[in-house]
Order: sequence, then C-alpha cells, then structure tokens
Amino acid sequence: MLVILQPDIRTESPEFDQILKFLNQIPDVRVKLHEVQGTEQTLTEIYLIGNTKALSTEDIQSLPGVERVIRISEEYRILGRHHDERRASGFEYNGVRFDQTNLNIFAGLCAVDTPAHVEQMMKALKAQGQQCTRMGAYKPRTSPYAFQGHGKACLPYVFELAGKYDIKVVAMEVTHESHIDEIRQALQQTGQPTGVMLQIGTRNTQNFELLKAIGRQSDFPILLKRGYGISLNDSLNAAEYLASEGNSNVIFCLRGMKSEAGAPHRNMVDFAHVPVVKRLTRMPVCIDPSHSVGSRDRAPDGILDVLHATAQGIIAGANMVLIDFHPAPPTALVDGPQALLLDELPRFLEDVQLCHETYQKRLSLYQG
Amino acid sequence: MLVILQPDIRTESPEFDQILKFLNQIPDVRVKLHEVQGTEQTLTEIYLIGNTKALSTEDIQSLPGVERVIRISEEYRILGRHHDERRASGFEYNGVRFDQTNLNIFAGLCAVDTPAHVEQMMKALKAQGQQCTRMGAYKPRTSPYAFQGHGKACLPYVFELAGKYDIKVVAMEVTHESHIDEIRQALQQTGQPTGVMLQIGTRNTQNFELLKAIGRQSDFPILLKRGYGISLNDSLNAAEYLASEGNSNVIFCLRGMKSEAGAPHRNMVDFAHVPVVKRLTRMPVCIDPSHSVGSRDRAPDGILDVLHATAQGIIAGANMVLIDFHPAPPTALVDGPQALLLDELPRFLEDVQLCHETYQKRLSLYQG
Amino acid sequence: MLVILQPDIRTESPEFDQILKFLNQIPDVRVKLHEVQGTEQTLTEIYLIGNTKALSTEDIQSLPGVERVIRISEEYRILGRHHDERRASGFEYNGVRFDQTNLNIFAGLCAVDTPAHVEQMMKALKAQGQQCTRMGAYKPRTSPYAFQGHGKACLPYVFELAGKYDIKVVAMEVTHESHIDEIRQALQQTGQPTGVMLQIGTRNTQNFELLKAIGRQSDFPILLKRGYGISLNDSLNAAEYLASEGNSNVIFCLRGMKSEAGAPHRNMVDFAHVPVVKRLTRMPVCIDPSHSVGSRDRAPDGILDVLHATAQGIIAGANMVLIDFHPAPPTALVDGPQALLLDELPRFLEDVQLCHETYQKRLSLYQG
Amino acid sequence: MLVILQPDIRTESPEFDQILKFLNQIPDVRVKLHEVQGTEQTLTEIYLIGNTKALSTEDIQSLPGVERVIRISEEYRILGRHHDERRASGFEYNGVRFDQTNLNIFAGLCAVDTPAHVEQMMKALKAQGQQCTRMGAYKPRTSPYAFQGHGKACLPYVFELAGKYDIKVVAMEVTHESHIDEIRQALQQTGQPTGVMLQIGTRNTQNFELLKAIGRQSDFPILLKRGYGISLNDSLNAAEYLASEGNSNVIFCLRGMKSEAGAPHRNMVDFAHVPVVKRLTRMPVCIDPSHSVGSRDRAPDGILDVLHATAQGIIAGANMVLIDFHPAPPTALVDGPQALLLDELPRFLEDVQLCHETYQKRLSLYQG
Repeated sequence: MLVILQPDIRTESPEFDQILKFLNQIPDVRVKLHEVQGTEQTLTEIYLIGNTKALSTEDIQSLPGVERVIRISEEYRILGRHHDERRASGFEYNGVRFDQTNLNIFAGLCAVDTPAHVEQMMKALKAQGQQCTRMGAYKPRTSPYAFQGHGKACLPYVFELAGKYDIKVVAMEVTHESHIDEIRQALQQTGQPTGVMLQIGTRNTQNFELLKAIGRQSDFPILLKRGYGISLNDSLNAAEYLASEGNSNVIFCLRGMKSEAGAPHRNMVDFAHVPVVKRLTRMPVCIDPSHSVGSRDRAPDGILDVLHATAQGIIAGANMVLIDFHPAPPTALVDGPQALLLDELPRFLEDVQLCHETYQKRLSLYQG
Repeated sequence: MLVILQPDIRTESPEFDQILKFLNQIPDVRVKLHEVQGTEQTLTEIYLIGNTKALSTEDIQSLPGVERVIRISEEYRILGRHHDERRASGFEYNGVRFDQTNLNIFAGLCAVDTPAHVEQMMKALKAQGQQCTRMGAYKPRTSPYAFQGHGKACLPYVFELAGKYDIKVVAMEVTHESHIDEIRQALQQTGQPTGVMLQIGTRNTQNFELLKAIGRQSDFPILLKRGYGISLNDSLNAAEYLASEGNSNVIFCLRGMKSEAGAPHRNMVDFAHVPVVKRLTRMPVCIDPSHSVGSRDRAPDGILDVLHATAQGIIAGANMVLIDFHPAPPTALVDGPQALLLDELPRFLEDVQLCHETYQKRLSLYQG
Repeated sequence: MLVILQPDIRTESPEFDQILKFLNQIPDVRVKLHEVQGTEQTLTEIYLIGNTKALSTEDIQSLPGVERVIRISEEYRILGRHHDERRASGFEYNGVRFDQTNLNIFAGLCAVDTPAHVEQMMKALKAQGQQCTRMGAYKPRTSPYAFQGHGKACLPYVFELAGKYDIKVVAMEVTHESHIDEIRQALQQTGQPTGVMLQIGTRNTQNFELLKAIGRQSDFPILLKRGYGISLNDSLNAAEYLASEGNSNVIFCLRGMKSEAGAPHRNMVDFAHVPVVKRLTRMPVCIDPSHSVGSRDRAPDGILDVLHATAQGIIAGANMVLIDFHPAPPTALVDGPQALLLDELPRFLEDVQLCHETYQKRLSLYQG
Repeated sequence: MLVILQPDIRTESPEFDQILKFLNQIPDVRVKLHEVQGTEQTLTEIYLIGNTKALSTEDIQSLPGVERVIRISEEYRILGRHHDERRASGFEYNGVRFDQTNLNIFAGLCAVDTPAHVEQMMKALKAQGQQCTRMGAYKPRTSPYAFQGHGKACLPYVFELAGKYDIKVVAMEVTHESHIDEIRQALQQTGQPTGVMLQIGTRNTQNFELLKAIGRQSDFPILLKRGYGISLNDSLNAAEYLASEGNSNVIFCLRGMKSEAGAPHRNMVDFAHVPVVKRLTRMPVCIDPSHSVGSRDRAPDGILDVLHATAQGIIAGANMVLIDFHPAPPTALVDGPQALLLDELPRFLEDVQLCHETYQKRLSLYQG
C-alpha cells in the first residue's frame, strides 16, 4: 500500500509525525519512506509493506496530511503505475527534463572510435541545438575476440568534447560496476563538463548484481534496455531492482526482440509497447530504432526503415530516442551499416519534430 | 527475366510479334504473358522463365517496343518488386483505388451477428463518408465447438445493406473455395449492390489449395493475411500462389505475430514491416490493429493502444486499415472486447487523417 | 459430461432405453451418442452437452448400465483424456494396431519420384518385416514454382507396389478434400492392395474446412501434424475438428516448431511433448525426426542427430515414427539431404527396437 | 590455426624451441600457448592468431614434434571442435572425471534453505553412492522482492556436510565475481572438505564481465547455462569468454528455451541439441530437466515428464544431469513444485543407469 502525502507536508512537520505514528503501530506492516523529486517540489510517499490486505484505505486517507492512498501490487512496487494516472513521473538531470510527456533525442556514436569522429558528432549536434548524445565506450560483444570498446581511455576526451559543444547528457553503456567509478573520475578530472546517463544493455537486463550496484548510486540517471529474449514483465521487474536499491530515475528503452518473425530487420521492432510501458509504470519510454531495425534499407517511398520505425515510436508517445549516427559509417568499429550520416541529421530532427507535433495533436483530439 | 513493353504496344501490333518471335527462339526459356491493368492503360509484361542467366538484358532492351528489362528472382516472381521502384502497383475495384500510395479504411464487424448491427455499422460509415467495410460471415475458430459465423445465410442482407448505404467494397474472409460461389450468387441475387474483397485469414496463409482456387478467379480482389507463425518471406511466397494462378490484385495484411514477446498485447505488432513489404513486393499493405493488439487497453495519455498501433502503421505508409467496430461490443459473438464503439468512429477517422497527412509531409521532407 | 456405459450394454437393450430416457428429460442439455470401437468390444459413450454444471455425477452413475461418469471440459471434448487414465485409446486399421502403448514405424519417401525408387523402398521394408510406410504424392511447397508432387498420377503404382510387398498402411499427405476421392478411386482400381492413413501437414493444421472434410469420412485413419507456429493447445483443438465430425481414429504427430532457438536444426525438436499429448488426449503420438532435425549432421559419437532425436522420442513412449528414407538422396525431388539411406534401415530398426525395449523396462521400473 | 604438439613434447624441449622460432617469424601472426591437462598427460597446443590464410598446414605439420595442424574459425576458437573429432575433451576435478563420453549426476537442492534439508539430501546421495550434488546459495530472482538465497552465510555448513557425506563436487551458481572469493574462503575455513563447480545461470550467459572474472580463476571448473532467449551460437560464444581468459574446464548446460511453443512445460526442452554441442565444441554437455520442464506432471504411463526429459537427454549422450530434489518440496523456498522427492532418488538413478547403458549399446551398434 502506498500513502501519498500532500505536497506541503515535510518530514519535520507534526502531521508527518502523526501519520508515521499511526502507521507504525499497524501489526505485520513495515513502513518505508520514499522521496520523489519533482520539478517544483518534493513529494513524500510512504510504502506499507507486508500484510496490508486487511487495512482500510479510507481510514488512512482520512489522516490529516494524506493526499491519497493506493493499493499496489508486488510487481514493480516503486516504479509501477498501479492504475493511478495522476502519480508523478520523470525527473530532471543536469538541466534536462525526462518524463512521460516530453521528448529528448540522443543521437550519437554506437562506439567511440576516434576523437575526431566524436568531435564531428558533437559539433553537428550543437549546430542543431541538441543537448544530448550517445557515446559507447564499453561494448559487450558476442565474441570475446571482437572489439570491446575503448573503455575508460576515451572518457576524458569524450567528456571534454561534450562540454565544448554544450552537451548536457551523454548516454553511455556500462557493463561492470567499476565503470561507474571510472566515469565519475573522468568527469572529475575534466571538471564535470557534462552529465552522464548510465545505460544497461539488453544482455545485462537480468544481471541483477549490476542493477543493484547501479541502483545504489544516485549521481547518474539510468537507461535500462529491455531484455531481448524475456517477457516485458520480466524486463520491467528488472527495472524495479534499480528502484528498490534507491535510484528511481530510470528510463526504459524498447530495442526490439530477438525473433525470426522480425527478419529482414535485425530484431522484431516492439514500439507498439510504448503505451504499455507508460500504463504499467511511471518510467519515461525510450526507443532505439537503430538496433531494432539494424540496416539502412529504404522503402520505395525513399524513407529509410529506421526512420519509419522512429516515426512509429514517436507518434505513439515515445519520450526519448537513442539513435546511431556516424561521420563515416564504413570505418565504424561497431554497427556501422546501420548508422545515419551527419548530413542526415537535420532532416531526421525535422521528421522527429513533425511526428511529435502530430502526437500532441492526437492527444488534444482524444483528450479534448 | 521480365520484359516490360512500352505502354502503347498492343499484343496485335507488329512490334509485339517481332519481340515474341525473338524471345521464342531462345533455347531453354519459356515465354509467359502477363497483362497489368493500370488506371489509365493496360501494360503488357513478358516473363522469360528458365535458363535466363546467359541472356543479355541489353540485347532484349534494344528491341523496338521494349521499355525495359528486369532480372527477377524466383521469389515472388510476379508480385515482387525486384529492386525496380518504377513498376506499377495496385489496382482499381468497383470504383475504389488500391495501391502503395493511397489509404483506405475498412472499419466494420469482425463477425456479422444481426441485421440490426450490420445496418447500424453501415449507417455510421455512410455518415462519415466511408465506402469500404469489413464483415465476417465465415469465421475459422480454434475450437470446433465455438461459433463459426452465420455463413452464407447472412450474405444477402449484408450485401443489401451495403448497397443501401453506398458501401463499395466489403472485405470478407473465406475459408473454403465454395464460399466464392456463395458470395457470387448472393451478389447476383441481390443485384450486385456492392463489391467484395476476398480475405484469407492467418490460419490459411499456407493453405495452398485455397490460395490456388481463389487465385483462379478474377471477379474479386484479395486480401491475404500474414501467417502468424511463419517468416515474412514465407507469407510473401504464399501471396505469389494467388498471382501465379492469375490474380495479382492482392493486398497484403500485417496482423501481428504469435509471440510471448508481444504480451500483454494479443500478438506482437509487426507494423515496422510496412516499408519492408513495399520494398520487396508491389502489393499495397494493410494493417489490422484490432487483432494485433486484441484489447481496449488505454495508455495514461488517454489513447487506446489499438489507436496508437493504427497511427504507427499509417505514419509509415500503410495503405489500408482493417479495424473492428461494433455497435454493442459486449454482445458481439467474436472478439467483442477489442472492438471500437460507433461513437468512436469520427475521432478515429480524424486521427487516421491526421497521421496520413503527416506521412505525406514526411514524404515531401525526404523526397524534396 | 460423459457417460460411459458398461461394455455389455447395447443400444437395443432396455437399460440403454432407460438411461437415454433419463438423460433426455434433463433441461438445457443435449444428448449425443459416440461409439468407440475397441479391439474386442464396442463401447458406447454418451456426451451431455450444454448446461451440465448443476447435474450430479452420482445420480447418473447410479443408473443401471452406467459404468462411470466423467466431467469433461470444452477443450478436446472427444479426444481429450479429461484426467481419466482408464479410457480406451487407439484403434485398429487394416490389421495394424495403433494406440498409446505400442509402436509402429513409417519409413519411406518424403516425395514419390519414380516407380523404381518406390519399389526399392518397399522391397527394403519387406526385407525388414515392416508393414507400414510413408509416401508423399501431394506436396505443399512454400513457393508456387517448386515441385508440387506427382499427385494422383503416381497413386496406382504406389498402391500396387505396397500390395506387392505386403505393406498394410501407407501414410500419405492430402492437401485438398478431393484427394480423398482420388485415393479411394486408386485403391479401388488397384484392388485395395493396401491401406492409407491420411496425413494433414503442418501448414494445414488449422485449415478447418479440410479437417472437417477429412473428419467426415471413416474409411481412413488420420495423422495430424502439429502446427509449427501455434501453441500445442491450438493444435490439439484442431484434432478435435476431426473427431467432432465423426472420425476419432486420429494420431497426433510432433514435427518440431519454427524457432530461431532450434538452429542449427531446421526446427526446434519438440519430442519432450510426447508424454504431454498422452496426458491431455487419448491420441497415439507420432514423431517426425526427419523434418524436425532436417539434416544428416552427425555427432562425434558417430550417430546422426536424426537418429538421436528418434531415440529421444521412443525412450519417452512415442507410438509411431515417420521418417524419410531414399534410395538415392541426391536425386530426391524434396528434402533429399535429410533422408536416410536404404542400407541404414536395418541398424535404424535395431536402434528403434533397443530404445523401445528400454522404454518398456522404464515402465516396469516405475509401475512395478 | 591450431598446432597440436606430440604428447611428449615439453615446453623446455629443443623441438619446442624450434617450432616456436619458426612460428614467431611468420609475419602478421601472433603465437599463443595453451596447455590442455588430460587424464594422463599434458598436451601443448599453439594458436596462431591473425592472418593465417596464406600459411601452409603441410609446412607446419612437417616440423619435428608437431602432431597435427587444424584450421580453426574465429568462433569458439579454443572450445570449438573445428571438425576434429580426435581432440581431447574434458578434465578431471577433485577426483571426478568430466568429458564428452561419461556421465555424472548432480541431484540436489535448487536453493539451500535449512542445514537439516541439506544434510538429508547429502545423506540420501551417499546412500546411493553419489559423489556430486547441486546446492543453490546465491539465487537470481526475477523480482527484487523475492527470496535471493542465503548467500555466503550457508556456505560453511553446506561444505562441511558435503565433506561429511563424501561429496566431491558441489555445483553452485554465482552471480557476482565476489562470490568466488566467498566460496574460496568458506572452503578454506572448513578445511577443503569438498570441491565446487561454479555455475553461471541463464540470465548471466551474456554477462561478459562475470564470465571474464570467472574465466580468470583456475581453482574451479565451470558450468555455463545456455541463455534462454539467444541462439545456440551466441551461448557457445559466451563459453569462449571463459576459455579466452584461461579456464577451459567448462561444461555447457542445456536448460530449455523461453517459448510459447513449450507450454505446458515451463520452457521448450532443447535436449535434441546434446549431439550438436558435442559436434561444435569439446565441452561435456549437461542437461537440466527440472528447469526445462518445471512441473511434476505425469504421463498416463506413470512416469513424470521430468523423468522422460532426463531419459531423452541421456539416450542421446548427455554427460551430466543437474536435477532438483528436495526433502519436503512444499516448504522449498524456490521451485519446490518441480522437485523430486528423496524416496524417488533410487529409482531415478536406476532409470538413468538404464538409459545410459542403452546409449552405450547404441554407440556399439553404430560404431561396430
């Protein structure tokens, strides 16, 4: 059971004391506090864990200072929406807002290769007024004999260049808990020129020890990719590992599912789940059209499949797009063939804008 | 190999004679004629079947009357695009145009139950200026003990009511070749008040005998649903069974794939394949959001998942939408829970229009 | 609800009259008779269809002549086991017994090509004392341009040769209801030299019109292959279409499922479902290792994967094996690469025998 | 390219020097040594990495001391069989031999709960002459709110009890590299009473950082479970991460694949891949029937599905069985419903023995 307090109730107030006193005397129930940082205010939520079936929501709702009471299921206890559409979602990080209503684009390099390519990418982004990017330093590869990314060696120049071109958030995959420290140190060394969003890849969606380690830090928000061979439910439960350790600044990323049915695409594009993730949880929803589609194939209408997939995610309300660009795809060390070119960036952003505006018109149509 | 003649070359012309003479003397190659009925003119195509590897396309291309020559693969020989984006696609039926660039909506009853419901549906469609619908008379059901549709008994009133409300095309599933005659007879009895598009369901996608029987008739165009447990390639090959028997007025319908990965949706929505089907074949592409999603679940943004899925198909260039409506879903005999309500029709059509316009703007963005 | 009569109760007996009288007066319940032909006697079963929830099984069980009463679910009403392990299963056809306890081998040609090959196959089978075979005359192929089988043209010589070499049952796929008549006529023309088991392929598992047509005849028993892209439950429901039309002499065939997880095998071998089909239904269970595995790959232990798969089916109690042999695989028109050679037949049969004996020892181990 | 030296060639011999000298002067090729510990002798293998296409195998083969030369692919470079059926496979650990020809049974507790249950299990195993077991201390669970195992707290009594009952090898899942040290310390504290096989679960099959950490230690052999949503090829590549870091004492475990097609079993049983893993790699192959089947459902023949699945694995040559037992399944904290009972152990082992003997008879049949 979840007790949401009125926005003005601080933990030092007498109402709070009284509520806590009342809740603490309930037998077989453990009380756990959770602070939700919104844009304008901090909300306090109180989880009642244990045998809550017999409790009356009315009794608790009538306590002074309580806004409302929601019965929640075990599944995704913290991140879940639990049929309450009014609950706050999202967070702000390094000046950028992430929630279930807005849209951020993370165009960038799947794998960092050279400082020159990183700079070309950042420059192109700045020219288009972008403030986020993706940069892969640690690359988990199917074969141990494949290129595994430049790792911490590239972090300093990636962060400096991000700072130089006013990039506020760099999404970056980590595959081991030690990478968090490496990133933190590189940011300190370079004077915190940018922010980082820690990305957990599809092979690690159920690497619970990594999730717990990342969930224990609160410096960086987290982008969790859906596991490509497990149910949506299992992937959402994995996100809850992050939240249960303390960090609920989590974005959930759809990236396609392994399936013969998806061919000739690399994966079966799963963006019809954008509204589903929003209904089941309070996480903003990201789409990754590059890894879902995995090619630069083009329809006879002249539009790349990867751009059609992007449009499909956005028209249904996606909140973030992770997409591969590269200044020279044939020289890319990882996933070059699916990357967009720098000169395709402006039109890509125009397309994105067009689809997002249409999504908003659809919203007014149905909500009006 | 495919030899496309210039539009003005009739089969009775001397150029035609000369071309045929030339082609017929090639050893190990069989010559087959194929007429393509376009909106304004009839094109003649000549297939060269057999050992064509050694032939020079230039030699044939230089014959008087030949427009161009395309090397084609065995796969979807007739319906395939074979990397030629200029080839004609689509057809006109009963005054309605179907091709890879326009959009037609087929809202209607998954299963016909009562004349009253059919009439309410038709009336609502006419009020919105619609000229197509879907009406299920023959229903293949997983269990032999489930309702199997009213069959031929309902055809007369369905067709009469279609005529009364100016519906030009009724999409209707057939599961046995005898149904074609039943439909033909009912249309005759009622004075041809409407047209029918024969629909082949997902359980019959590889029922090759049914495909051949339907392919042999040319009265009705065909809507072939993708098989829900086979590769896209196998489904497209199934379409070729229709064409190889003579009827290439075929629309291909995406309707979701069976996969645990699709839950909580009934199927894994596969509309990212809209551009793929257009690239591989010349068939117009239909989407069936009702059976793909299979519920009336709604996102916190107030929009039903089934409407988000529809928008996703259209934003990527879908040419036809097959969607379940019902005047009283709780009384529907088949798939009631997923049906839209009649009063949702106007907004649905407005949403469709909005997304289609956005698709067209995207087209100009990339083609401009 | 199912009322099983005592074995000696004939439909002309006074007890039968009395039972029927009693059952017919129950409101909202329809009574349907079903005769089960066992090896030694004919059992009469009475299905009560409709609102049977309120009925007392004790009341009906106490009627003279009633042996026992079973509550059955809607699913696979006739073929289902309904948790009753004592119910009769299986049937005899042309002198060969098929049930859930014995084992029959159907080695033969996937596709009939020449009379010489058919004869070589039949001769080899007779030399090994075999009385069943498989012979494909009608071949459903993914592409319309692939070889589709010799059809009815080959039936006379196939049947004559079967007779010549004392083959009692030929399993043969049919893809259209007209094939039943073609087979019946060819048998008549050639003087009924053998028997035929009608086989329904995986692409037609949910071709309900074909199932109904085949279910309506009682001349031939039926082998239904599992649908390769649908749930086991859906495939078992498809079998019920046959029984609900009157023919419950049905064998269910596992043949692997389409899945990327099965590679490098052609399909994901599903023989772990042998005991499941026996638990859920009363059908004997066939395995098709050739199409499941789809190659002649061999383990380092010197045994072909297809033979390992066969052993796996039999060790778990499979009742029939459908397996491809060919006198000259490289010349086979369909699926040559997976066929076994004629000189591999004796050892194959010895292996089968060894595994079946081990299965029987396992039975005594657990039942002892 | 792989150069296998004659068994008597030690690294301090002059032949070895000469070979190395020859190989080191080849341009663009890196030389890497690999010691293979067999039962009786140590083999030395030399990998040539880089541009080896132009090299002549004959030239190298003719060097004194070289036994033979194999061209190997990038895929599973060390663990792969590379079409060479003579290569050594397997290893010995704590007095127990593991290879592609023998069979070891690991019956035990999925999750350790109480010392009493651990002792009952060990006692039962000793009574049956068993020397291996499975004991789960660290349990990765889908939900963060589920029981996660007793962790290091239970290790001392588990190891002491193993020692008391002469168990030589305990298979134990680890989910974080720190668990290796915890296990090592607990073994030291308790005086090394037993051995441990480190098990990597299906959710961590592509947790490459964990694989690398485990591959770097050589104290313990490794059991790697197949990833349940990835291709067999990807799972075998994951095993190579272990070997590439130095530890090639790896057993590969089939445990079923996630698939709707597997229902009513928990997973789609994949034991038809036993011969495939042996053909592609030199790893011994383990089967896990408990997690594949996931229930105690029983066929009408009186044998549990999980025992049929076990028999299927063994009849095809499986080398190890991981199976859940529990003294009191209803009180088990994890996966109780699928566990076998202690009094089922003797018959289970008898069944296993029977099937393994039959496998060996099959071997002589085909090799004879």
